[in-house]
Amino acid sequence: MKAFKGIAASDGIAIASAFRLTEPDLSFKKRTVTDASDEIKRLYAAIDVSKDELLTIQQKTLEDLGSHEAEVFKAHVAILSDPELLKRIKSTIEKDKLNAEYALTKVTDSYIKIFDSMTDNEYIRQRSSDIHDVTKRVLSHLLGVPLVDPALIHQPVIIIAHDLTPSDTAQFVPTYVKGIVSDMGGRTSHSAIMSRSLEIPAVVGFTGSLSEIKNGETVIVDGSTGNVIVNPTEAQKEEFTQKQTAYQKRQNRLANLRFQTTSSSDGKHPILAANIGTLDDLQGAVENGAEGIGLFRTEFLYMDTNHLPTEDEQFKVYKQVLETMDHKPVIIRTADIGGDKDLPYLKVPKEDNPFLGYRAIRMSLDKPDIFRTQLRALLRASAFGKLSIMFPMITTINELQRAKTILNQERIKLIREKVPVKPVRVGIMVEVPAAAILADQFANEVDFMSIGTNDLIQYIMAADRGNRHVSYLYQPYNPAVLRLIKNIIDACHDNHLPAYMCGEMAGDQLAIPILVGMGLDEFSMNASSILKSRALIRRLDSREMVTLANKALTMASTSEEVVAFIHQALNDGQ
Amino acid sequence: MKAFKGIAASDGIAIASAFRLTEPDLSFKKRTVTDASDEIKRLYAAIDVSKDELLTIQQKTLEDLGSHEAEVFKAHVAILSDPELLKRIKSTIEKDKLNAEYALTKVTDSYIKIFDSMTDNEYIRQRSSDIHDVTKRVLSHLLGVPLVDPALIHQPVIIIAHDLTPSDTAQFVPTYVKGIVSDMGGRTSHSAIMSRSLEIPAVVGFTGSLSEIKNGETVIVDGSTGNVIVNPTEAQKEEFTQKQTAYQKRQNRLANLRFQTTSSSDGKHPILAANIGTLDDLQGAVENGAEGIGLFRTEFLYMDTNHLPTEDEQFKVYKQVLETMDHKPVIIRTADIGGDKDLPYLKVPKEDNPFLGYRAIRMSLDKPDIFRTQLRALLRASAFGKLSIMFPMITTINELQRAKTILNQERIKLIREKVPVKPVRVGIMVEVPAAAILADQFANEVDFMSIGTNDLIQYIMAADRGNRHVSYLYQPYNPAVLRLIKNIIDACHDNHLPAYMCGEMAGDQLAIPILVGMGLDEFSMNASSILKSRALIRRLDSREMVTLANKALTMASTSEEVVAFIHQALNDGQ
Repeated sequence: MKAFKGIAASDGIAIASAFRLTEPDLSFKKRTVTDASDEIKRLYAAIDVSKDELLTIQQKTLEDLGSHEAEVFKAHVAILSDPELLKRIKSTIEKDKLNAEYALTKVTDSYIKIFDSMTDNEYIRQRSSDIHDVTKRVLSHLLGVPLVDPALIHQPVIIIAHDLTPSDTAQFVPTYVKGIVSDMGGRTSHSAIMSRSLEIPAVVGFTGSLSEIKNGETVIVDGSTGNVIVNPTEAQKEEFTQKQTAYQKRQNRLANLRFQTTSSSDGKHPILAANIGTLDDLQGAVENGAEGIGLFRTEFLYMDTNHLPTEDEQFKVYKQVLETMDHKPVIIRTADIGGDKDLPYLKVPKEDNPFLGYRAIRMSLDKPDIFRTQLRALLRASAFGKLSIMFPMITTINELQRAKTILNQERIKLIREKVPVKPVRVGIMVEVPAAAILADQFANEVDFMSIGTNDLIQYIMAADRGNRHVSYLYQPYNPAVLRLIKNIIDACHDNHLPAYMCGEMAGDQLAIPILVGMGLDEFSMNASSILKSRALIRRLDSREMVTLANKALTMASTSEEVVAFIHQALNDGQ
Repeated sequence: MKAFKGIAASDGIAIASAFRLTEPDLSFKKRTVTDASDEIKRLYAAIDVSKDELLTIQQKTLEDLGSHEAEVFKAHVAILSDPELLKRIKSTIEKDKLNAEYALTKVTDSYIKIFDSMTDNEYIRQRSSDIHDVTKRVLSHLLGVPLVDPALIHQPVIIIAHDLTPSDTAQFVPTYVKGIVSDMGGRTSHSAIMSRSLEIPAVVGFTGSLSEIKNGETVIVDGSTGNVIVNPTEAQKEEFTQKQTAYQKRQNRLANLRFQTTSSSDGKHPILAANIGTLDDLQGAVENGAEGIGLFRTEFLYMDTNHLPTEDEQFKVYKQVLETMDHKPVIIRTADIGGDKDLPYLKVPKEDNPFLGYRAIRMSLDKPDIFRTQLRALLRASAFGKLSIMFPMITTINELQRAKTILNQERIKLIREKVPVKPVRVGIMVEVPAAAILADQFANEVDFMSIGTNDLIQYIMAADRGNRHVSYLYQPYNPAVLRLIKNIIDACHDNHLPAYMCGEMAGDQLAIPILVGMGLDEFSMNASSILKSRALIRRLDSREMVTLANKALTMASTSEEVVAFIHQALNDGQ
């Protein structure tokens, strides 16, 4: 028996045989060729087979996981169709009379090197890893070495892998892939995100050596705690089988909460809504019993495309969301683009500190044409459901007033054009400290506020949570964060407005008790967190949570002290 | 008569003849040479003469302006001694048999291109402009075309220039250079900073065409308003001569305030201290009647060098500051390095958002050896004056406690080593919103707080003021900023601690009335702002300012409204 520890990446428990997704041997020698045109033919043949494979995987992913997840294979195909890349490989073969394997890796390596040297940027890193992934595939065909094909798995297994490439995970048959162990990355690594999408228990950032796990050995993966046991004892097998059954029971109980309203033990009814990023997320929101959409991010309309989305393209998407939600409230946020989200067709300036830069409403007010198109599409869609419009990154009252003026101008134009427009509520995402501090003044100008904790916490703590050197300062429970949140909620309630939250904190099981105590009216979160949050709130007495919140706000000086108060309150209540 | 407008860059009024510092014709043809070694000799001769010139200018600058300003010429000499650069130029001459002029500019252009393409970074831009400046000098010697020599000016003139290179300004004889007009840059451009150091009236960012000003024409420069008049009428000459006299009188009146304590009209005594960045700034602090040093930034010790400063190197500097200030209070801030301040010998990681990154106390706690060296140097220096130690970028109580523990460990070690150590006050720079919001909790752990408005405002508004697309959001008078400042001051006073401010806002003539009203105890600013701030405070009744502050904190919703309240209060009081 060997026990290991890693990062809990996807909930649940799995017991099955190990299946090592090992790297195939793709080594080759550099050699000169006599007939360059033959070598080029070999290259093109390998590229064609690779493209066919990628199209098949893309189709399968689209069906199993949705269009967002399939996007990466479109990118892979695009790389293999890039004329500049192909020209360079071809010319290396022709001019230097070198074999296709060498020419291919020489050229793609140079791309990868440029990308890797450029920046710490997540997007660029992803491009670099795409090229790497595609090169491997073409190389495997050139060398006639088959890539291990996860699609061939037809018995229950635990996948053991260094990292999972998108093409690996896309080929998994979820019936057989019971668990995943990887020694790469954290909770936001590709492997982790994919396993959560597929609802497969997973542990990432595995601290042991993967080579200690042999093919066929029995492995237990506890994706809720990060524990991995290799060759478990009979007692351990027994123990974890029981845990697995208990976990499954809990999941079933949660499923029963799907159509119930949210209620605390003393009868308060906070609303649990879903955050969505694309139309693909809608199904999960409905299935998990979301009482509304608290945040529809519209960036995907601008990002997965080579042009600005037209009014009609947007209108169709907004209409579909409103119709699917069937008169449940839907909050759609205007585009938070710019800054770190690079849009080639927009020529956004490169910035030293994009998180403190030109983005969201700042760009919308600076490029009113793009903003007006989105607002018209939203207003037209308002006729099909219960729509609220939310402006992101609002910092000053002047910005809010200008945004509202533009919205009103477009409303009047549409009414003159005899287009049906229903009244919409207008609110702001409170994610800049200035707006949080001045919430009482903003309350005179809006119908609701929604607290965007992801950015708000970063600004309060002056720490980029994507920067591993300072990510420990991203502290949702820091008393400074809680005080500013309380200030927003109080300002709303003093002005008879509802206060919402749509940051990750809203679905955080440790934060929910305090937020209930502060009187937050709506919690909007990833759909997968809704049912367990509903179950949690049913166990809470809101009056006890008021006491907890007050203690955290006045007596605590550190995040650790707040967490201790929460644990104390939750244990007292049981 | 022609009237123009530019950016007011350096106060004062000048009337004199125009002296155009025009670009010499440094054009040349690319040609092949037969004797490469002759050409290389020509190159080295030109480089040697250039180096000699640069050393002379460096010496002159050191005497006239100080070591910080002379630093740039050291950099120029260093460029001309870079073996890699010389090797490349030499090899271009040898291999391609090309003339030295062509080889020189080809190589330096390639450096400039790389720097310019790399980033928006101010430091890199400066390196690029240094190489450009040096290339011009060597080229002038290769071509035998003399650079216009400002040292030759021996009558009163107004310098008309596209931009002033460091070598230009260094050669000015201040007795003769009465004013400066440049069509480049803003208040932080090189020309602007140099003219303020030299106390020469200057207008930069000139909107007209410089070619409209001929050599010898009479020019009036009003560096306080940005007005430039060419060929003024007699009436205008009269008017501006009177203004000049009035300005001089005001300056003299201010000079009389040098040795007086600061006092409001109703007898409150806020302290006016100086911010300094190097030892060169000390003289200005003393001359302008600083009642202490409110912020000594220690970054220069780490930046203008190729190694980490030793304990002794630091000790000498700290001791000199404390001795010069002669038992007036001195607050020394531990190093705020990392992030945007690149230190080649430290290998600071490149970050996506350096302002939200690994810097200041975050780096100090992560690299305690560097931190301990600085703390030991500070503690040793404490015996020579009235020292306070301030930690920058404190975000959580835990960080502060860790920093204090390390300080105490070093103190105990020194005492055991029988090194004399006096008690020092320990405080934090409040520049992260978290610390500002939680000031009441921090008050239990410090002897004082100093508000660092430059960063605090950037975080509150989520806007990088160096980013021209969002710099309009850098709003010192925004009610959100004022409320957080008030929260800090109140938390200090509730706990019987003094509240200081060392950001630019402390020297801002519009902000001072409100800050007096909030009860700020010490204003620390650039030395050049002290006397006019002292004059301003003498006119203020602190009780009226309390009313002003309360209005701004409770009734205003925008920066504009606050500014209107300030103007109203200042006019009412007169």
